[in-house]
Amino acid sequence: MRHDRFDVLIRGGTVATATEVFKADVGIKGEEIFAIGHDLGRGDREIDANGMLVLPGGVDPHVHIEQVSANGILNADSWESGTTAAAFGGTTTVIAFAAQHVGMSLARVVEDYSALARKGAIIDYCFHMILADPTEEALTLDLPKLIREGHSSIKLFMTYDRLRVSDESILDVLLVAKETGASVCFHAESSGMISWMSKHLLAAGFSQPVYHPLSHPRLAEADAIDRLVKLSALVDHPIIIFHVSTAEGAAIIRRARGDNLKIFGETCPQYLFMDAGDLQKPGLEAAKWMCSPPPRTVDDQEALWNALDRGDLQLVSSDHAPYRFDTGGKLRNGDKSNFKEIANGIPGIEARLPLLFDAMVSKGRLGLDKFVELTSTAPAKLFNLHPRKGSIAIGADADIVVWDAERRVTLTDETMHDRTGYTPYRGREVQGWPQIVLRRGKVIIQDGERHDEPGSGRFVTRSRMPESTGWLASHVAQHMASLK
Amino acid sequence: MRHDRFDVLIRGGTVATATEVFKADVGIKGEEIFAIGHDLGRGDREIDANGMLVLPGGVDPHVHIEQVSANGILNADSWESGTTAAAFGGTTTVIAFAAQHVGMSLARVVEDYSALARKGAIIDYCFHMILADPTEEALTLDLPKLIREGHSSIKLFMTYDRLRVSDESILDVLLVAKETGASVCFHAESSGMISWMSKHLLAAGFSQPVYHPLSHPRLAEADAIDRLVKLSALVDHPIIIFHVSTAEGAAIIRRARGDNLKIFGETCPQYLFMDAGDLQKPGLEAAKWMCSPPPRTVDDQEALWNALDRGDLQLVSSDHAPYRFDTGGKLRNGDKSNFKEIANGIPGIEARLPLLFDAMVSKGRLGLDKFVELTSTAPAKLFNLHPRKGSIAIGADADIVVWDAERRVTLTDETMHDRTGYTPYRGREVQGWPQIVLRRGKVIIQDGERHDEPGSGRFVTRSRMPESTGWLASHVAQHMASLK
Amino acid sequence: MRHDRFDVLIRGGTVATATEVFKADVGIKGEEIFAIGHDLGRGDREIDANGMLVLPGGVDPHVHIEQVSANGILNADSWESGTTAAAFGGTTTVIAFAAQHVGMSLARVVEDYSALARKGAIIDYCFHMILADPTEEALTLDLPKLIREGHSSIKLFMTYDRLRVSDESILDVLLVAKETGASVCFHAESSGMISWMSKHLLAAGFSQPVYHPLSHPRLAEADAIDRLVKLSALVDHPIIIFHVSTAEGAAIIRRARGDNLKIFGETCPQYLFMDAGDLQKPGLEAAKWMCSPPPRTVDDQEALWNALDRGDLQLVSSDHAPYRFDTGGKLRNGDKSNFKEIANGIPGIEARLPLLFDAMVSKGRLGLDKFVELTSTAPAKLFNLHPRKGSIAIGADADIVVWDAERRVTLTDETMHDRTGYTPYRGREVQGWPQIVLRRGKVIIQDGERHDEPGSGRFVTRSRMPESTGWLASHVAQHMASLK
Amino acid sequence: MRHDRFDVLIRGGTVATATEVFKADVGIKGEEIFAIGHDLGRGDREIDANGMLVLPGGVDPHVHIEQVSANGILNADSWESGTTAAAFGGTTTVIAFAAQHVGMSLARVVEDYSALARKGAIIDYCFHMILADPTEEALTLDLPKLIREGHSSIKLFMTYDRLRVSDESILDVLLVAKETGASVCFHAESSGMISWMSKHLLAAGFSQPVYHPLSHPRLAEADAIDRLVKLSALVDHPIIIFHVSTAEGAAIIRRARGDNLKIFGETCPQYLFMDAGDLQKPGLEAAKWMCSPPPRTVDDQEALWNALDRGDLQLVSSDHAPYRFDTGGKLRNGDKSNFKEIANGIPGIEARLPLLFDAMVSKGRLGLDKFVELTSTAPAKLFNLHPRKGSIAIGADADIVVWDAERRVTLTDETMHDRTGYTPYRGREVQGWPQIVLRRGKVIIQDGERHDEPGSGRFVTRSRMPESTGWLASHVAQHMASLK
Repeated sequence: MRHDRFDVLIRGGTVATATEVFKADVGIKGEEIFAIGHDLGRGDREIDANGMLVLPGGVDPHVHIEQVSANGILNADSWESGTTAAAFGGTTTVIAFAAQHVGMSLARVVEDYSALARKGAIIDYCFHMILADPTEEALTLDLPKLIREGHSSIKLFMTYDRLRVSDESILDVLLVAKETGASVCFHAESSGMISWMSKHLLAAGFSQPVYHPLSHPRLAEADAIDRLVKLSALVDHPIIIFHVSTAEGAAIIRRARGDNLKIFGETCPQYLFMDAGDLQKPGLEAAKWMCSPPPRTVDDQEALWNALDRGDLQLVSSDHAPYRFDTGGKLRNGDKSNFKEIANGIPGIEARLPLLFDAMVSKGRLGLDKFVELTSTAPAKLFNLHPRKGSIAIGADADIVVWDAERRVTLTDETMHDRTGYTPYRGREVQGWPQIVLRRGKVIIQDGERHDEPGSGRFVTRSRMPESTGWLASHVAQHMASLK
Repeated sequence: MRHDRFDVLIRGGTVATATEVFKADVGIKGEEIFAIGHDLGRGDREIDANGMLVLPGGVDPHVHIEQVSANGILNADSWESGTTAAAFGGTTTVIAFAAQHVGMSLARVVEDYSALARKGAIIDYCFHMILADPTEEALTLDLPKLIREGHSSIKLFMTYDRLRVSDESILDVLLVAKETGASVCFHAESSGMISWMSKHLLAAGFSQPVYHPLSHPRLAEADAIDRLVKLSALVDHPIIIFHVSTAEGAAIIRRARGDNLKIFGETCPQYLFMDAGDLQKPGLEAAKWMCSPPPRTVDDQEALWNALDRGDLQLVSSDHAPYRFDTGGKLRNGDKSNFKEIANGIPGIEARLPLLFDAMVSKGRLGLDKFVELTSTAPAKLFNLHPRKGSIAIGADADIVVWDAERRVTLTDETMHDRTGYTPYRGREVQGWPQIVLRRGKVIIQDGERHDEPGSGRFVTRSRMPESTGWLASHVAQHMASLK
Repeated sequence: MRHDRFDVLIRGGTVATATEVFKADVGIKGEEIFAIGHDLGRGDREIDANGMLVLPGGVDPHVHIEQVSANGILNADSWESGTTAAAFGGTTTVIAFAAQHVGMSLARVVEDYSALARKGAIIDYCFHMILADPTEEALTLDLPKLIREGHSSIKLFMTYDRLRVSDESILDVLLVAKETGASVCFHAESSGMISWMSKHLLAAGFSQPVYHPLSHPRLAEADAIDRLVKLSALVDHPIIIFHVSTAEGAAIIRRARGDNLKIFGETCPQYLFMDAGDLQKPGLEAAKWMCSPPPRTVDDQEALWNALDRGDLQLVSSDHAPYRFDTGGKLRNGDKSNFKEIANGIPGIEARLPLLFDAMVSKGRLGLDKFVELTSTAPAKLFNLHPRKGSIAIGADADIVVWDAERRVTLTDETMHDRTGYTPYRGREVQGWPQIVLRRGKVIIQDGERHDEPGSGRFVTRSRMPESTGWLASHVAQHMASLK
Repeated sequence: MRHDRFDVLIRGGTVATATEVFKADVGIKGEEIFAIGHDLGRGDREIDANGMLVLPGGVDPHVHIEQVSANGILNADSWESGTTAAAFGGTTTVIAFAAQHVGMSLARVVEDYSALARKGAIIDYCFHMILADPTEEALTLDLPKLIREGHSSIKLFMTYDRLRVSDESILDVLLVAKETGASVCFHAESSGMISWMSKHLLAAGFSQPVYHPLSHPRLAEADAIDRLVKLSALVDHPIIIFHVSTAEGAAIIRRARGDNLKIFGETCPQYLFMDAGDLQKPGLEAAKWMCSPPPRTVDDQEALWNALDRGDLQLVSSDHAPYRFDTGGKLRNGDKSNFKEIANGIPGIEARLPLLFDAMVSKGRLGLDKFVELTSTAPAKLFNLHPRKGSIAIGADADIVVWDAERRVTLTDETMHDRTGYTPYRGREVQGWPQIVLRRGKVIIQDGERHDEPGSGRFVTRSRMPESTGWLASHVAQHMASLK
């Protein structure tokens, strides 16, 4: 094999990693990046990237695809449509969910979801396991086994009646995760405040979508995060707070990190680019902007940007949750749906990178290296996909986006490739757009066309954190030492 | 009626209120204080208080008397024994509990407890209503009615399986309290962490009393207080946190108060004078030092004193919870009782004032005016007993203690007048002791003897905070105004 | 002497102290309060206080009277006019300044100021010694001697070129104060930021009064208080921050107190009732609202009220600094005066109590007992005038105001009795006004007339804090113990 | 030019950047990195890096070389000896000082220092300009001109009598820096507390080195940082705090960053590896551990590590300040030197990387990527040397260290190449040592020998931050908008 001959050579672009930006060719052999440098030789296929950015493909660690909700609402996307939309948006790896409902076997759930993905995925993927029924069997048999097989992350809910688990179950799961080296993610909103506020609002006739944010009090997010910080501290195991929406939430995480606790946090484009005022649309149209937690205020947007800047939050995922705008999807009770009868969630798997690039690079907030970090490197590292995913580095999977930093695109319902049928970002013009997308060295998106088949995406087995035992003995020893 | 002739004249003492200390006679007519000054004239009965302090009688707003616990454990004290002990310790008013268990009618509970007190009390009293079963009936009928009749305070539990109520129920009760002008007090420890830790400790054989503090993690108190602060903020109604035991708990309250939230806090002598090391006694003897939350560390004691100094905490109650040291009381499972089978609670109704006087006045910490404030004026004000109770002022009930600041007493199991049979403070020498105690102008304790009959104590109807309505409209208005 | 016969008897009023409110007569013999109670007998002089409040006379611990400023500006008030205005406003004790300038002997300064007060004062008084030239002699001879003679408080400046002292001198003075038991008060604004901003503003032509607040950056106050907190901590001696004007300043004090440091703070009516918008008056008229620190924003007013409520700040003084509105007073450079050429300070000795009563009692903010605490009891305690001053208690000086809580008065330039010629509160209507004022048992104000002569006020010798030595040894011991 | 032929090829090593670690060859052409990848071809010179790490050369942004102190003490190192020691320790770029003393022309100072470096440097370099005499000329002429020529950083002192500048001068310099795009660094300790404590300690005979830490109170650092945060906020220009030594200092920086202020911080190995206990050596030997600020406690070490982990602090420089252990150096007064007569400063330019590697990589604290970030990438970025310096990236200067992660070395006075004659780290064994060092593609250290001549190091012109004007107008506009 000649060292100056590549399967694919991306020539003349400006490569960006989470810390560096430089002009260089990128040479690919097989599925991996083989060399980066000037004048690298020749490629069987050559891509002219002059004037373009060469970025690692996006890693979106929080998407709902082909998932059935606990109350039977259909997800609008199949693995084919969902990952196709992702790829068009520059994302080459997703972490979706394998969602256990009460009564289901967790092992079986993972198997079923894997079969769907295997059949339809265009890009690489893996799963967070949602545990809604933490039975003895799930905790002691299924969970440790699945984690050791590479499903090394779990998601728990603190709200939603059919999903939420008790403090004790959270502690149980954290302990299993600690002992097997898994990550644990949380939907952090306190259930009681939400149901209480909802009850009072609906009883008083405040039933339109514009009251949805009020039914999810900011205090409910703060309370849940505050509690999780303490549960994490008790077990001494890291946690990841999903979709932080409020300044207070970000501040609690900052304070916890200042206390040397291992608390990580994610936010989403909907909390950076939308606010509660978007829910003032007439009729039920506003339902298209409804998600949970709800979008908050412009001040919260600022606070979240600052939290990303300082590293208090580390992730910006899409939380892609696609529901069609009909009774089988968003509007469980059709035209008469009150805010509790509207499915929570918005599409965003495709728009994530363009929205963030426009804000961070084109408009100058935080810059290109931070864009790469937030959209690719950080999620890959935090969820143990790195160094295979998340960077342009020798030996990494050749998941690469050739990005046109100048191109201006106006987002519309029609430009999106998912099957939701609308986007809450419609009408918004962004500067910067993915031109060519490679997944493991293969061009899958070019000239606005998809170039690979469903099922070409591959499951990624992940590494784990070190296993840790002896937590109780350590608590006891510390307690006894504290006595005079 | 001659203005210089009193029923009782306390002559020549040094009177102390929460802000003043001065030499003066105190003249009593009927049940009230009629005049304070020099050379007040004569009394039908004259008490020589030269060299003595003349203090308002103690108000102990947190005592368990003749109460049956949810799991059937007998309280060691009748109203006679409990209030006799209180009186010997210089306390002239108590707030005890009328404790609803699941399935009971709250109105009936209050009636039953009132009957017991009416029969046995030596000093004046009223009740916090414990709500363990917040049914529709209790919330909408009994509670508002009882509050308006002067039972203007409620206690809720966040832990103990048979007592704790959900976040939603807490919000329900706070709303009723807001609309009727009642106070709400809390046992603030999060249930999940406690049961989870207990389960693991017992399973691993760490079952002795010394592990009890570890089974009530400090984080459980912090979490509960953190949550209550937010629940209180949501309803915008003040709350009172009972028996704060940790520095963190006090710090959360301080921070909340700094945010202009109306959070009040109590601590108890057990958290100022005991620490977890006291539970290292051999065998089950340590059970005599067991209460919940448990005593913590010497650093916590310092933090709590500082919190009292700064006004972050406003109350020091006894949380008198007397259990005899046998299977009907402390030791549910006799000699084999693990820490979960030991009743939580210690006696302290009599020792409270002497312990605090010794620390605050004799040893110089915080001083005499603060002693009066913490033990009498502040609880009377916070629970709407003032100006009838809690001070030496014209028109107030003549509840007065003639206090010997020099007398040294060593506390022993035998010196206490309650029926517990032991005191966790045994062996401790204190300087300062109540010499003569008057309740509404009548001498009830003198020369170590009681001088009045069971039933002479009287129920005190309390005033209420202003009623407040329209909370939801205010939330909605604020929300709509926040939208751009 | 008959015990039911008084020199003065105030009959039928509602007496208020810092903790109690009750109906009672107040009997005075000689200069002291002799008895409080119902039906007290008869007085040689009887005052009908039915429907009136009976309050302790105001203590104003921060007033400038007959003081010559370091740059020669004349104070508008003599001791006669200043204390007459105070008395008309319900204040019966003031702490003024004996102001050393560079080159002056401190002992001589105190003597000179005392002579002026002795001649003119209508009410009782004492002095804070301003130290602008902390020479060896002043520190080692004059200061300790004067403190031990009862001049037990010092004021230092951190800004103003002719007054401010270095950090080292502050430490020197704190150490003397610690070793002799004196209080130290501060004008806490950092000089450098102020002169730098002023230089730039004037150079750019922003010279009108409305830019004065900008020339005293909020950060300058925060910086000075932050530094003082640390200087106080180094010497371990309490300090009092005068005229806190910003939310940040109050927050720093709160935080310091939370760290168990002994930091106390004062604010003034100008920071509770005025804001920077008041300086928008046309021409130089705005100069009448100029003081330093300047009035800030409505949000700061709220923050300061909250800080008073929580006890973070303990004092509301007038900082009465009367300058006539002419070239010898306010306007050093006449009509052409830029903001640096305008004397800082406003009158307020008479309006303080009515303004505060109106806000606190009539309009309901914080209440009557807190009004008494802030205006009388707290300053008397903090500056060691208590128990002689600051309360209605047996044995205290009979400094009493009979206050009409219903009377409405509109403040105007003409209603004020000081010699400034204007009041920044003109046009403001207040409810509540002092009706009769007694100083040591003698009626000095009644029916809008003064009833005593200049010189009838008396110097009050104050007690001191305990002397404390050995600070260096304690530092050294602590340091050595910290080494491993 | 053949693309597979390099001047130097480093073969088979494990390359590490601030975010990536991967096995790859590194190909160098001329002075720059040309390619990174597998099987890169051949090099005229080949370096076998199998089993070795390939790291970017260290950037040490805080060293004193051939500098004359304000009181005439000789620096032990010439540019030759200083940079030779740096190179042996794996450092390939330093930022030293061009130190103006009072009365000197800043332009001339920069010229003189440049001449010395040009003659002696082995590695690349640039200067922070120390401004001790901020005259009108320096501020308006020299400084802007020098900054625009690429001397884009300034250092100011807040302590030391001959160096420290006033708050106003700091503001002046910050404004110039803002308007010309320069960085400003600070020695942040408040002068007054230090001189006051020193005076008292020496007067009481506490004159040995062990009291030196006590003479630099922790509060002096906290105060200075607190003030700088505010000065920076007033001008709205970033600042860099040098050598943070205390937990409090790091906490203030964290809080400021949480408030969205642009505050950056450095610490040094002496604060991570030494503590005040090191000054307990007998006699004056302890002087070898004396620097300012002084080493503190083991708890501070932990706090500083945590601050580095969280990104509150961004730099670990050496603050190499070499003084020979004689009267011309450390001991101004020979054997009789009290702590004020001992020169502050310790050598560390060579030991920095090995000490940090041992702690961070060999012992596992924070890891290899963070090691690269702290020692090379972060200082290069913060001081505008990046992308030329600070990373292994295409087009960057080929400043590379081939590092043996296994080699164990015991540090001794003799192993160090600077001319101080001792190291405070003597006796300490570290794992990990630089094997080969390349500077711009040239091997300068190999087999324990130096391979290039004095003067081969080169001055690096730096880029600047964007220039920013209009600060006053913005202050004024904000002020006027805040008025109601």
